[in-house]
Amino acid sequence: MRTQQQVDEAASGGRAPLRVAVVGAAGYTGVELLRLLLEHPHARIVAVYGRSRIGESIAEIFPSLAGRLELALRALDVDELAASADVAFLALPHGESAPVAHALAERGVLVCDLSADLRLRDARVHTEWYGGADADSPLRARAVYGLPERHRAELATARVIAVPGCYPTATILAIAPLLARGLVSPDGLIVDAKSGVSGAGRTPALAAHFPEAGEGLRPYKVAGTHRHTPEIEQELALAAGRELRLTFTPHLAPMSRGILACVYATPTSPTRAAAEYQAALEEAYADEPFVVVLPPGQLPDTAAVRGSNRAHVAVALDARAGRVLAIAAIDNLVKGAAGQAIQCMNLALGLPERAGLDGAALFP
Amino acid sequence: MRTQQQVDEAASGGRAPLRVAVVGAAGYTGVELLRLLLEHPHARIVAVYGRSRIGESIAEIFPSLAGRLELALRALDVDELAASADVAFLALPHGESAPVAHALAERGVLVCDLSADLRLRDARVHTEWYGGADADSPLRARAVYGLPERHRAELATARVIAVPGCYPTATILAIAPLLARGLVSPDGLIVDAKSGVSGAGRTPALAAHFPEAGEGLRPYKVAGTHRHTPEIEQELALAAGRELRLTFTPHLAPMSRGILACVYATPTSPTRAAAEYQAALEEAYADEPFVVVLPPGQLPDTAAVRGSNRAHVAVALDARAGRVLAIAAIDNLVKGAAGQAIQCMNLALGLPERAGLDGAALFP
Amino acid sequence: MRTQQQVDEAASGGRAPLRVAVVGAAGYTGVELLRLLLEHPHARIVAVYGRSRIGESIAEIFPSLAGRLELALRALDVDELAASADVAFLALPHGESAPVAHALAERGVLVCDLSADLRLRDARVHTEWYGGADADSPLRARAVYGLPERHRAELATARVIAVPGCYPTATILAIAPLLARGLVSPDGLIVDAKSGVSGAGRTPALAAHFPEAGEGLRPYKVAGTHRHTPEIEQELALAAGRELRLTFTPHLAPMSRGILACVYATPTSPTRAAAEYQAALEEAYADEPFVVVLPPGQLPDTAAVRGSNRAHVAVALDARAGRVLAIAAIDNLVKGAAGQAIQCMNLALGLPERAGLDGAALFP
Amino acid sequence: MRTQQQVDEAASGGRAPLRVAVVGAAGYTGVELLRLLLEHPHARIVAVYGRSRIGESIAEIFPSLAGRLELALRALDVDELAASADVAFLALPHGESAPVAHALAERGVLVCDLSADLRLRDARVHTEWYGGADADSPLRARAVYGLPERHRAELATARVIAVPGCYPTATILAIAPLLARGLVSPDGLIVDAKSGVSGAGRTPALAAHFPEAGEGLRPYKVAGTHRHTPEIEQELALAAGRELRLTFTPHLAPMSRGILACVYATPTSPTRAAAEYQAALEEAYADEPFVVVLPPGQLPDTAAVRGSNRAHVAVALDARAGRVLAIAAIDNLVKGAAGQAIQCMNLALGLPERAGLDGAALFP
Repeated sequence: MRTQQQVDEAASGGRAPLRVAVVGAAGYTGVELLRLLLEHPHARIVAVYGRSRIGESIAEIFPSLAGRLELALRALDVDELAASADVAFLALPHGESAPVAHALAERGVLVCDLSADLRLRDARVHTEWYGGADADSPLRARAVYGLPERHRAELATARVIAVPGCYPTATILAIAPLLARGLVSPDGLIVDAKSGVSGAGRTPALAAHFPEAGEGLRPYKVAGTHRHTPEIEQELALAAGRELRLTFTPHLAPMSRGILACVYATPTSPTRAAAEYQAALEEAYADEPFVVVLPPGQLPDTAAVRGSNRAHVAVALDARAGRVLAIAAIDNLVKGAAGQAIQCMNLALGLPERAGLDGAALFP
Repeated sequence: MRTQQQVDEAASGGRAPLRVAVVGAAGYTGVELLRLLLEHPHARIVAVYGRSRIGESIAEIFPSLAGRLELALRALDVDELAASADVAFLALPHGESAPVAHALAERGVLVCDLSADLRLRDARVHTEWYGGADADSPLRARAVYGLPERHRAELATARVIAVPGCYPTATILAIAPLLARGLVSPDGLIVDAKSGVSGAGRTPALAAHFPEAGEGLRPYKVAGTHRHTPEIEQELALAAGRELRLTFTPHLAPMSRGILACVYATPTSPTRAAAEYQAALEEAYADEPFVVVLPPGQLPDTAAVRGSNRAHVAVALDARAGRVLAIAAIDNLVKGAAGQAIQCMNLALGLPERAGLDGAALFP
Repeated sequence: MRTQQQVDEAASGGRAPLRVAVVGAAGYTGVELLRLLLEHPHARIVAVYGRSRIGESIAEIFPSLAGRLELALRALDVDELAASADVAFLALPHGESAPVAHALAERGVLVCDLSADLRLRDARVHTEWYGGADADSPLRARAVYGLPERHRAELATARVIAVPGCYPTATILAIAPLLARGLVSPDGLIVDAKSGVSGAGRTPALAAHFPEAGEGLRPYKVAGTHRHTPEIEQELALAAGRELRLTFTPHLAPMSRGILACVYATPTSPTRAAAEYQAALEEAYADEPFVVVLPPGQLPDTAAVRGSNRAHVAVALDARAGRVLAIAAIDNLVKGAAGQAIQCMNLALGLPERAGLDGAALFP
Repeated sequence: MRTQQQVDEAASGGRAPLRVAVVGAAGYTGVELLRLLLEHPHARIVAVYGRSRIGESIAEIFPSLAGRLELALRALDVDELAASADVAFLALPHGESAPVAHALAERGVLVCDLSADLRLRDARVHTEWYGGADADSPLRARAVYGLPERHRAELATARVIAVPGCYPTATILAIAPLLARGLVSPDGLIVDAKSGVSGAGRTPALAAHFPEAGEGLRPYKVAGTHRHTPEIEQELALAAGRELRLTFTPHLAPMSRGILACVYATPTSPTRAAAEYQAALEEAYADEPFVVVLPPGQLPDTAAVRGSNRAHVAVALDARAGRVLAIAAIDNLVKGAAGQAIQCMNLALGLPERAGLDGAALFP
């Protein structure tokens, strides 16, 4: 067998591979980052960091990696990380990530932060929803919101990337083009979204206990209490060109992966034909590698994007009731987290955007 | 062991038991009717009718009934049924049910029709959504819409009952009291509803094939194309006191049973407190045996009503965005079909409304 | 509405209802006991005890009981319990139950202990598998192993009942009649059993976390390490008339409820026909209210017994390979726990054995 | 964007890519072949053939491929296929595959046949289990049984490969090394195996209907009636060096993918230590790229191999009862079908065995 280095060099066409580290590797976002990075032609995983089970092999923690990755989990040391890696993915709890991001960015590491710490541009809004701890992070102004379909140009020069939340990704991809083109009103938007249970993380909790979550479906944090609300509003306001407030209802569905977001909007013209909404989406995403606009009559299904970085979006006009319905399905751990982070890394480093991310969904 | 007859008489306190027949017993609504009727203190199942597998024991068709019910499936003969049964539950496909209902009603049988054939009062609306075949059924004017919480008085004298659809039941229970009290506008209602797969029936189909439906969630028949739309509109118009049109989006979720309906509405006053919506629901359902208004902060979960005839309803005010969210969870096969049909029968025959239906949900 | 007391008296035919208490009511066995006892014509639930969430309504802890049972959880006081209840169901962790059982039995309460504390007759075997704490409980000699199909006569006079484990129930029901009749050898038995996740209890743990347990199947505690092994051996030894050792392999399957046990045995005669094994089971269970021997060619399915106290058993002869395969399916929370405990109570109190337990399975 | 051809050439290092065709592309094995082949660095999918929905885009049939593969389904023409492709994967029903395999092999195409038509070497055994239609296929003598871990040398020169069934793959990988080393007896083997529902194919059927298959677990085709029995026996006889007969029990579990096989065997020496069985497996699979021998104490879980070509195997000694338990978990559609077929193709063409197959499992 060839050595890993030889494999790397061959895969990356002679170019020295990117050295990447994953911080918070013992959670679901962590393992998904590892799964994807192992297939990335230009990346080599050099270190995995965690907060417990230090010293254990990552393959003990995730048997799905057995035979594929043999690194041991380490306690985080930012100097060590900066010395050994070019890129760091931070899959840390909200509130713990910003200081690490700061320390690593200062040391020249490209930071892809998957927490919410740096997503909100307005420090006051951040304080309102998350408390004041990281509100004044010096990175807040520099961090680029890592949704390539909305911020590709900024990502090209980003050094700190705030990777979006899963619900915002699905929601924004579904409705932003219609807002940006003025086809629907920014007022009165309703987002009814459904998530798989992996979105709640790997820490055991009653709400995610199999007998409680299996065979049941339920809303939670309704009526403007879920923290993804201001993040969605921030980005849709950018698309619409003015402030807006919307209703966001998340649900927990009995599946491991997947988010389906249905966005209800009011047309700005009552006589516009359904084909115009369809055309707007198709035009918006014509060159996007990871957004599939479904043909009229076909609707998104989370089962069709499982394990993939693709978003499936569709639009329908309810002419009877005067509503436009924009729908998106993504895998919350891929396009909603790990895959999107890697897509952002690719853009920030000038790599092909699809690198390591082009795999088809696992169906069934 | 005592004979079944002795058991019946003891259970019903000496009263001669009701003789009931189930037509269309080989489907999911059929087996749920049988399960519930077996526990009914005043009913005795005298015949089960089907369209195929004639002559087979119902326990072969549904091993869940083995040791509990030993009748063989028979081909329908309305004269025979009328001679042997006092009540008939019709779990037949739409379009096949109305003629049978008519024949049985003429022969003096109390008919609980679980199809959509007789639910819409306006023949033109029926024609528009279901075609003209049964539009002019002589029963249309006589059939009572079998939602006891809205039509209890009419049910007391009903001889033909059009048992509501599963989505309409959940939707109407959630929002009708708020409409009836003028707390929300009849305009712009949005219903985002999610159903378990049993709602699609027992006939194998790709959309309900386990590898397709498991671990996936998807909308279907969106934007005013699902036939439950006019049924919901009819009943909410009655509550609101005027016509209305709404947006209804059904989804298929990876669970066998359950419907969760989220209804989004606009308050008629922007300053009304959340407690007023809560109070309206509590008042509306104070004496209802099968509607539980959850306390503020608790939200409906389909897992909490599985196998039960209870509906769990809740209301939340999104003051930020100016929306009221009314939510209901039911078991689509019980309160959404078989249980509600039996509840209607109880009312039509002057039996205790809870008879045979008081069982707690199966959790987990 | 009638008062609960009037309902009770009517249901129990004038007889004063049994007063029952559930200790450990906040777990899955607890809620299942409550669900079943609520339907019991002769029982009234007078108290629910727990170790945490004291003072909370049981309907907050289990919304499935909302509208049906309004008791608050209390901290256990054995004197109070003995003063208010005739029967106590103990759904406590192993090691905590025997002392409570003792205190209650001394105060004259009929004790149905669902823990493993008193199941093993031999104190040395108990010590070997569970440690010595309760090995010398004075109840060990008095407690009756609560499997009615094997110990009905003893149960008639029992005052302390050790309700069997879920795996032992399924396994013993499948194979004991064949051992008792000498049709299969007691040597070399293999039990391959699969359980739903509710068997692991309600306390959140990684192995039962939805994303870990969903869409996966795995064995655990294999090769003679699961504590149900000696319990199965004890009862099969009684059936066989001599000691035996077997291989027991439990699995966790992605479903909430159900146990399927496949028992592999060697025929004592290589030429015996399949029909003789079938006849043996049918004869053994001819008068049993809760065991259904499936006809040849039909096989047990956990989905057909969900929520029911019935066991489905079948036997097949693999003539090619010289093996007999005995299979049983039960609901682990009903026939494998709560239902069986109530069945035992019925027998110990001279009530009809089926009382409160005759409900058909919830399918689908 | 680069053209597909440029991508292909770059990926395959300048080498002309292999042209592959998938026959029977509209089933689950078909879509999994496509998913994997799309990631293969040396392969290019040139045609997809089906029996219905001819002319439809494969992305309409499988939305999981949208944006990734745009071929239309064609009716099979063996001359056309032979002219355009170097390799054909046949995912056809049993009985339809052998004639196609013959026609393609005659035309020089490398044939990977995923049906059972050519797996059994003995025509009489084939006739006994599958009927006589293809018993005398001229390919029977030439076809190599495509389990690389047992037949790697033969595969190097194979032109027709009979890809093993899913149950045989898991079973043989678990127990063959112990048989080959004489550590366990060939007599009295018992295989208790559990499969996800995708193993039943994509054609809707009651047994795979979501409400029937969800939340339930059941055996089927027990006691020597499942057609994988002779296939397992054939290969284990080769390992053991003599004929044998075993008991095989398949089960359907409520998950989409995965097979878990537990093989029960009798040690040839009662005093051998557990470590010797462990060492035998580790030695047997030391150089295998796709078999992971789990460390002692860790057990296979189908969730850890989902989407991966890896098998996880483990062995445990039940010293109390004198049994060895060998366990394997695979993804039935990958190592149990499509992945294994590609692994065989790689070997037959002298490509790196891991090519296109090295992806880690999708967890959770």
